[in-house]
Amino acid sequence: MRRWLTLVVVCVFLAGMAGVALAQFARSEDAIRYRQSVMFLIGQHFGRIAAVVQGRVAFEPPAVEKNAALVATLASLPWAAFTVPGTDSGSRMRADALSDTAGFLTAAQRSEADIAKLAEVAATGDLDAIRAQFGVVGQSCKACHDVFRR
Amino acid sequence: MRRWLTLVVVCVFLAGMAGVALAQFARSEDAIRYRQSVMFLIGQHFGRIAAVVQGRVAFEPPAVEKNAALVATLASLPWAAFTVPGTDSGSRMRADALSDTAGFLTAAQRSEADIAKLAEVAATGDLDAIRAQFGVVGQSCKACHDVFRR
Repeated sequence: MRRWLTLVVVCVFLAGMAGVALAQFARSEDAIRYRQSVMFLIGQHFGRIAAVVQGRVAFEPPAVEKNAALVATLASLPWAAFTVPGTDSGSRMRADALSDTAGFLTAAQRSEADIAKLAEVAATGDLDAIRAQFGVVGQSCKACHDVFRR
Repeated sequence: MRRWLTLVVVCVFLAGMAGVALAQFARSEDAIRYRQSVMFLIGQHFGRIAAVVQGRVAFEPPAVEKNAALVATLASLPWAAFTVPGTDSGSRMRADALSDTAGFLTAAQRSEADIAKLAEVAATGDLDAIRAQFGVVGQSCKACHDVFRR
């Protein structure tokens, strides 16, 4: 029952995404550049949190909170750009993201949810909790990259 | 008196930016890619507002509000990345942005303030007011691009 419900949720999300994707990018190059821009910025700001979590930069709660909030905002943006037909060449995205879009979006949604949680945790200013959730996010990013990125 | 105050504000902003810029980018290529990513995303989401303002897409207040809020968030990010020494080659930034950083940051701050205002106006759902402020933003973007972008 629960698996069916998940499937329905993913399908509705997928249909919405496909419509959004078609409407939003005039050219497939724009979709590729869009998602690459978002992913690069996520990497930069997640990297700034990494520097704190790993002890390379002093912990300043407002800075971590701001970076985590920004990563959460950015993480809501790129998925539609990955579902644009024909955008599996000229980028690091594997064709699997298009042939198994439901699988891709499930993994993407998991990352997005984990990142939203990181933003919540960052707002508490508890470094141990931030470090723990940072690890969770790292794993869900990697899980998706391992399958859908080359 | 007011010009002096402006100068002091710009200098303090500039000193802060320079420190931030040095700390945040490991390599100058990262600074270039960072600001290009932000500017591309601003262009995409400002473009979605343009489509509504110009009557090509139906006015859906929540969508315009969301795009304007996102553009405002993005517009707060890239300026430090423009002040990194040695990043005037390999991109469309003119060397003037580094030799006249105060002038650049004044123009950048004006755009940022105009965009913040657009986000406020977009939240009211008044299309005429949105159209007017959209024009103001377009002019301040252009004013900066005309001088500092090639």
